[in-house]
Formats: sequence, C-alpha cells, structure tokens
Amino acid sequence: MSLSRIRLESLHNKVMTAEEAAQLIQDGMVVGSSGFTKAGDSKVVLPALAERAKKENVKITLMTGASLGHDTDGKLAEAGALKKRMPFQVDRILRNKINAGEVLFIDQHLSEAAELLHNKNLPPVDIAVLEVAYIDRDGSFVPTTSVGNSLTFASLAKQVILEVNMAVSEDVYGLHDIYQAEDYPHRNVIPIVAPWNKIGRKTIPLDPNKVVGIVFTDIKDSPADIAAPDEKTSNIAKHILEFFENEVKLGHLTDRLLPLQAGIGKVANAVLTGFKDSNFYDLTMFSEVLQDSTFDLIDSGKLSFASASSVTVSQECYDRVFGNLAKYRDKFVLRPQNISNTPGLIRRLGIIAINTAIEFDIYGNVNSTHISGSKIMNGIGGSGDFARNAYLSIFVTQAASKENKISHVLPMVSHVDHTEHDVDILVTDIGLADLRGLAPRERAQNIIDNCVHPDYREELQSYFDRACARGGHTPHLLEEAFSWHMRLAETGSMKK
Amino acid sequence: MSLSRIRLESLHNKVMTAEEAAQLIQDGMVVGSSGFTKAGDSKVVLPALAERAKKENVKITLMTGASLGHDTDGKLAEAGALKKRMPFQVDRILRNKINAGEVLFIDQHLSEAAELLHNKNLPPVDIAVLEVAYIDRDGSFVPTTSVGNSLTFASLAKQVILEVNMAVSEDVYGLHDIYQAEDYPHRNVIPIVAPWNKIGRKTIPLDPNKVVGIVFTDIKDSPADIAAPDEKTSNIAKHILEFFENEVKLGHLTDRLLPLQAGIGKVANAVLTGFKDSNFYDLTMFSEVLQDSTFDLIDSGKLSFASASSVTVSQECYDRVFGNLAKYRDKFVLRPQNISNTPGLIRRLGIIAINTAIEFDIYGNVNSTHISGSKIMNGIGGSGDFARNAYLSIFVTQAASKENKISHVLPMVSHVDHTEHDVDILVTDIGLADLRGLAPRERAQNIIDNCVHPDYREELQSYFDRACARGGHTPHLLEEAFSWHMRLAETGSMKK
Repeated sequence: MSLSRIRLESLHNKVMTAEEAAQLIQDGMVVGSSGFTKAGDSKVVLPALAERAKKENVKITLMTGASLGHDTDGKLAEAGALKKRMPFQVDRILRNKINAGEVLFIDQHLSEAAELLHNKNLPPVDIAVLEVAYIDRDGSFVPTTSVGNSLTFASLAKQVILEVNMAVSEDVYGLHDIYQAEDYPHRNVIPIVAPWNKIGRKTIPLDPNKVVGIVFTDIKDSPADIAAPDEKTSNIAKHILEFFENEVKLGHLTDRLLPLQAGIGKVANAVLTGFKDSNFYDLTMFSEVLQDSTFDLIDSGKLSFASASSVTVSQECYDRVFGNLAKYRDKFVLRPQNISNTPGLIRRLGIIAINTAIEFDIYGNVNSTHISGSKIMNGIGGSGDFARNAYLSIFVTQAASKENKISHVLPMVSHVDHTEHDVDILVTDIGLADLRGLAPRERAQNIIDNCVHPDYREELQSYFDRACARGGHTPHLLEEAFSWHMRLAETGSMKK
Repeated sequence: MSLSRIRLESLHNKVMTAEEAAQLIQDGMVVGSSGFTKAGDSKVVLPALAERAKKENVKITLMTGASLGHDTDGKLAEAGALKKRMPFQVDRILRNKINAGEVLFIDQHLSEAAELLHNKNLPPVDIAVLEVAYIDRDGSFVPTTSVGNSLTFASLAKQVILEVNMAVSEDVYGLHDIYQAEDYPHRNVIPIVAPWNKIGRKTIPLDPNKVVGIVFTDIKDSPADIAAPDEKTSNIAKHILEFFENEVKLGHLTDRLLPLQAGIGKVANAVLTGFKDSNFYDLTMFSEVLQDSTFDLIDSGKLSFASASSVTVSQECYDRVFGNLAKYRDKFVLRPQNISNTPGLIRRLGIIAINTAIEFDIYGNVNSTHISGSKIMNGIGGSGDFARNAYLSIFVTQAASKENKISHVLPMVSHVDHTEHDVDILVTDIGLADLRGLAPRERAQNIIDNCVHPDYREELQSYFDRACARGGHTPHLLEEAFSWHMRLAETGSMKK
C-alpha cells in the first residue's frame, strides 16, 4: 500500500480492507464493476463479497464491462450472491446457475449497457467497484488494463469503492482515451475518423464525495490461456488470409486492409498470427479486446495501431507490454466500451469483423451463444455491435467436433444471434463461403459446397433439395429443421 | 414535354421514347432504379422493359431504393424480366415468383445497398433509370418524391437513363439534402446532430456523358392505400401512447420525446395519428418513409420537422403537400437512404423506432419477413437499421388473426429478423410488454401475461413451463417449437 497512489489527500481516510468494503454492498443492490474479460476487474472486493455471501443472505445485480477474471463470477455464483448478471460472462459455474434458472442473465450487446444506464432504461447503479492505477489530485482516476463501463459507473453510481492496484504501474497514465457522449437529445458527433484518434481525457472523472471506500491490492490480472493454433484453426486462418489476398487482387481492398476487429479465442489469434508472414502491412485494429497476437503483430512491424477497451493477454505478454510501456505507449489505446463498440464508428471506419460462431445454418444465420437452443455458453459480447455495422462481417467455426459427432453447419440454427442480413463470409476448417450478393438459395448451395464437413454434406444437401421442392424464398422443412439437434440429444451424435 | 426541364442544352438530343430507352437495357445487365415505396420510381421505362420482355429474352438484376410503384415489380416479374431483385419488394406477383425460386431476391438492410456498391461487394451497376424533376445546367439533377439510392446509382452506373416527370413541380428543388459519404478508408463524420440539419447539396451530381437517354413522363406516383385505423390498430396505438406518457412521468423522456421512426402501414399511421390529441409537442421524425399521418401532424402543429428518404402518401395528401410546397418546404427533408437509415445517426439522435412484426416469440425474437419459415412477404426494409441502433426499439403486431386461427405470439418464431438483443418493447392489441432489463425467462412471462391472445395463453404458458422444467437460459422444447406452425399447415388453424 502506498498513499502516494491517492493524490487527493482528503480521501486517505477512506482506506479500508476488502472485507470492510464488501460490507458496504447491501442485499438487493445494483453493483457496477470494472473488468472486461479478466482485465482490470475487482481483485479483492467482489471475492470478499462472495465469502460474505456464504454466511449471510446478500444477493446483488452485477453489471460489468464483460466477463470477470478467474473464478470471480464462479465464486459469486456458487455463494448465491448473484440475482442478476449482465452483460457478459464466461464462467462454468455461473453458466450452470444461469441455465438452471437460479441466476438471471441479460445477454447484451456490449456497446449498449452504458447507453441503457444513461437513458434510464435499466435500474440505477447503487454502488460501483472500480480498479484504478491511482487517484489523481482532482479525485479523477486512472483505470488499469481495461476501461469497460467504468466511466459510466463512476458517473452514475451513488457510491464508489476504488481498488488501487499496486501491481499496475502508474505509467499506464495516458493509455486511456476517456470520452463521454452527451445525453439525449443533445448528443454530438464522436470525432473519431481513424483508430489512432484520441478525443478525450486521460483520467475518469469522479466526485470524491461518492467514494465510500478505498482498498489496496497487488494482484495482476488473471492471465489468458491462449491455446496454440491447431490444424483446424490454422486452416480457418489460411482460408481467411487467402480471401483477403484475393480481395486485394480484385482491387476491393489495399494491402493495408481496413481496421480489424477480432473476437476472443484461438481462431482470432491464429488469423492475426497468420498476418506475420503475409504481404499485408500498416495494419490497424479497432476492436474490443487486444490479445497476445496483437502485440506480436506490433513487434513484427505489421500492425501500426490498435484501439480497444481491454488488454487480455498471457502472463508473458502482460509483462512484455506493461514492463515496456515506453515502447508500446503510442501503439494502442483503451476506450470505454460504448466507444470501442459504437455502431457509428464501426461503419465510419469500415471495420473487418471476425467473430466466432457456435453453429451456423445453410442460409447464413449464426448462433453465437446457445447449445441446442436453450443452454447459454457465454453471450453475444460485442459480436453484434461489430457484425451488423462492419464493412465485412466474417464468422468462423469448426465444421464438426467431438469425433465429428456434432456438425456446426446445420439445416437451421437452434438460436439466432446474427441474422442472414448481417453475415457476409462464413468460414470453417473445410472452406470459405462468400455470401455477398447471394440470395438465400444461392447461399445455401455455397455453404453446403464449401463449409460443411464431408460426413454431413449429403444429408444437408438432401434437406436443402427437399425443402426447395416444397418452395419458398428460404426453403425449410419445419418438422425436420431441428432434427439434427434432437438426434444429438437422443443418441449423442448428429449422425443418422 | 418541355425542354426547359433539360437546362443543359447538350442533352436535348438525348430525348427518346420509353420504348427506345428500354432497348438500351440489355439482357444480363445490372439495373439501378430510383423509387422508394412507390415514390419517385420509373413510371415508363421499366414498364416498357416489361412489355419488351414478353416478346424477347431479357433478364436483369434490378436494384432500387425499396419497393416500386403499383404493378411495376409485378409486370417485370410476370414478363420474366427479373433474374435478381434487391433490396426490397412488396408485390404479390413478384413475391410468388421469389417463393417459387424463379426470381432470386436479396433481402437487405436498406442502409446497406449503397454501401455494398461503393465497397464493390456487389456487381457494378450497368445502367441506371432515374426519375427527375429537372436536369440542371451542370448536368446534375433534382430528384422527385424520393432519393433512395439514386445518388449512388448516378455516381456508379456506367450509363444513365433519366425520366423527366412533368407531373412533379420544379419547385421540389431544395427539398432534398444530397450528401455522399467518402469511400473507405477516408470516410469522415456525417455532421447531422438533429433531424433538421441539412448538410449536403440540393441536386444529385451526374456526368452528362453517361446520359444515354431522356424520357418525358407526366404520371404521379401511385397513391398509397391507407387503411383507416380499426379496433386492433387503435388499441396498439393506445398502448404505445400510454407507454410514452408513463416514460415522461418517470422522467425518462420529455414530452418532446425523441425523433420518431415509424415503419409503413396502418399501425404506424394509427400511432402517429394518436399524437394529435395528446400532450406531446414539438415532435420530430427521423425515418425512412413519410406517410399521410406525418403531414397531418405537421398540420395540427404537433410535428416540427420530418427527415426521411421518401414521401409515400394518398392522392389527397400528395396534392396537399406538393401543391403547397411553400407551406411545407421547411418542415421536411429527403435524404439518400444510406443517410436516413445510417446506424451512427440512429444512435446519435436517439431514435424511437416503431416497426411491424409478422410474429414474435416468448423471448422477444421478431420475424418481420417470412410466413412459416420459408415464404417471404416483403422484406426487412429499414427495420433492422433502426431497431438495432435505436434508443427504443418497439415492434407491433396483432395478437391473433384470421378468426384467431393464427396466433402472432409463438413459442419460437419460424424466422428471425430481429433478435432478442434488439427488441425493447412488444405490443399487440392485447397489451404491451416492456422487456428492458429483463432476462429471457422474465421476458417470456411478461409477454405471455401481456401480449398473447387469450385463446392461446394457456398453451403458451404450458410450453414455457414445460421448457423451464427441462432447463436452460432460454428454455425451449425443440421438438415442439414449431408445432403451432405445423398445425396451421395441417389443419388451417394453430389451435389444438
């Protein structure tokens, strides 16, 4: 603990333990917390709340940037501390509680939580728990490895608990671009016309009178587990890179491409890694999360600048970046997620969006969230913000999994997160389907020819042919549309 | 015919008949045409092409703003002149051809066709057919009752045919705000911060060397058939107005509300008409089509300004507005549809979007386009542009129809155009469900309690209860999800 991290001396008397701070959170409260996919989340206060909830009845509505770090969501869920959770999660225990109906989850476009709060379309935030690098002399603070919704929570919450994380260097000052759009009806232009434009302040403003507790921590973000590219992800990456190369040949794109957005996970990492040995150059990112591959591309000289709302990387990459900020300082910026993901900027900049699907169907509808219609995995995250408004919207998945007992290309998806209207390119390890300018029947044949695993091609073709015989713009056989999912539930395999 | 409408004299020798102009359209061409829901469409050249196609083989890809006027799409389809059609249609004959697989239809967000053309994500336009009020001395032209995609077609088409419509006064000069966003990667801010901001030029630029034919016409837009409000639409309107009044009471909105978007049809007309006798004032619209109700609200002093891409009104309203332009000139503006419907402006202005659904399900997914999953009705139009990015996204439909044999509130929609993530408020004549801040299981109970027709409430509750017993974040019984649609196909009724 170092009081020099609290530069506003009148706040020095607010320092307390995590347990004391957790006592300030009352049963029934709406809590807004920093944290966007592990980065910059509450390291001790929310875990202390989970401990407390094991012994007494305290149930909260928890809003965050996105998912929380290792186990925090799980500990809260296991202790029964969560009544409602939004807008994203990835935890196994929490997911089970949600699917059992014990925790209510609101699966929201990541750009929208802040909008909904400012517009009073969600209940007000009672208390915020925000990780900071330090508190400045005016009471404003410097966030850490993410911005998420912290600006909104700091602005709207009635009370605020700050976690000063000593493990994060005060040198992170300047990495954040803090911009708050005006409330309606007087909202102005957000003046970003390139990923590297900085338009805001460097600290998040906060009324010091709202600070009810300050807790010191010295814990790094839980590291991201980055799976090495395997044959499937490498094939997906190869198809996408070949597609980009061809677009350049056709004169549709230059070899600078357009700003890239990549979802979280090993496919996105594989694609970005693939750029290292390509002819593309001076690339940029306008995304929501920066992973290891972003910094590898910066190191290799391929990527000039990256904009996002969080840095979620391995331990090695974390030390490399935050231990050498002088080197990386002018290469990336972290923004509030309602700016990183805002629809207007995504269209204005012409983003190439690459996101992961759980399954897609022959007409190009994408399911990003649910297993067999009912059970949620994680959530839509920012994929909808980007896919709808992107220059190019690309979705990827493996063609089949579990010894090919599950096909990820189906007659009809069991849940729709991205409609046929929003999907340009679909890619599996088998191949790529370019759906631009195609009507549904053309899309279907293209997807069957290029994306489906060979074990399922014949049956999928049969479904499509028989549906066409019955007619329609988007021919389906409703009585068979979910038969593959039902067979999986009954027999453990989608195969006949 | 009056050559004074062709102020660039070098073009006088391009005047020809509609039949001659139709001869300039070759088999296989991509044709871009003016017209946005009847307003400002080709009155004679496309009909002449349909006549020609009865006798010889000529099949085109036709892109427009939206639907075309009375019968044009139908005549083209019937004559076999359409290979592919985008981005919207409403014609009975064309719809049947699409559903039979004889015409390929691309159902597109209306903001996107121009984007896709500029980005070279669609085949280039060979020839454009554009209705104009007059051609100015620099070769630029003044469009008529819509802008649609005419700016894009004029800019990108290799050849252009102009239809000078003598039925439209030259006084329409100044009603249009013509703004072209820059191509990527150098796109700048679109500087609209209020519906009444005009940011562009008054005429659409055109290289006179591309003009291959000029045809004179004297035919008004085919009038809109506006059905008078009936009991159901009046009830829907009443629920929405009460909701708005309550939002004002809660301090969420002022009684100026926020700019309104309303889809086409009698529900939208009923809602807007309802404002006449309300306490709301100084209302504005930022929409895609202006109907009779818009001008009625202007006349009653309730509506200050309306922005859109087209005026589609009854004969009476047409004469009232275009016969008294001095009165209405500063009350509305017509923009290219990639501006009227652009995502960034919709979020920036905080639009309240009201659109019509064919059906919705217990979790709030909306089907705007398909009958029983396969057969298209019209298309998504601008509903997706607005719903995704709006301040409030409202969808309306009747609870039941055809002597209540069809329920429009269902266990699962048979086609998804708007996902649960994009839908805030659902309304039927039975009641209104406010889904903001609700998890899927809460949404379902709210919709069952408030929106479904009583004849179907018990069975819908039973579906939901049994699905919940099986578990999941969004509980479904896949084997039963479409059973209501299948029963309708088998027995002519969704009732057991």
